[in-house]
Amino acid sequence: MDVFDNVSSLDLQRIWDGVHGRVVHGERITLGVIELDADSIVPEHSHDHEQLGICLSGSLVFRVGDDSKELAAGDTWSIPSNVPHEVHVGPAGAVVIDVFAPTRDDWREAERIASRPPRWPT
Amino acid sequence: MDVFDNVSSLDLQRIWDGVHGRVVHGERITLGVIELDADSIVPEHSHDHEQLGICLSGSLVFRVGDDSKELAAGDTWSIPSNVPHEVHVGPAGAVVIDVFAPTRDDWREAERIASRPPRWPT
Repeated sequence: MDVFDNVSSLDLQRIWDGVHGRVVHGERITLGVIELDADSIVPEHSHDHEQLGICLSGSLVFRVGDDSKELAAGDTWSIPSNVPHEVHVGPAGAVVIDVFAPTRDDWREAERIASRPPRWPT
Repeated sequence: MDVFDNVSSLDLQRIWDGVHGRVVHGERITLGVIELDADSIVPEHSHDHEQLGICLSGSLVFRVGDDSKELAAGDTWSIPSNVPHEVHVGPAGAVVIDVFAPTRDDWREAERIASRPPRWPT
């Protein structure tokens, strides 16, 4: 495990259609910088991992359980373990940070796609 | 625990001299948006909490154990449990995200300071 890294040097991996991430795995936490294409959808899903996040750029409508809100840069979310959530991304796309505990070991072998420059930082 | 929040509505709390943060506590993870004043110093310290982070703006020299590196926006760090680390902030200050597991319960009662506009997002 490297102490230091940079979004431009991390592998880019597919998470959902139109949703790709660069990920740092610790021992207890996974931190992902996630790029969501314009008008993409993260379908409802849930997982044991607690998930906290913050929007860096763009906009998205996030639903967590029965709560739904349009979010932009500086907005945060906190998703308890096993609560269903889904995302509808705005017309300009979005870049967000999502963090998970325990680590997203299911992402360690996820499909890698061709490298491209990060959309954030601009 | 609120599902959604925003950096501008979270309490601002003192963490070190010249270092203040707005914090979301989950059940397993604490996520903080941390503002570090120009030329401020986070003295060497360590904690059981694993700490991952990413620089949003500005620059800082981060030392983790025996590794030291100058970091800017898009750079990440991963600090295993109980590894000593320190930070020397650059002349323009910095804003970073730090995440911890388990939660930083020692921060729940930390000193609150007067509200001010977040330095990020700009």
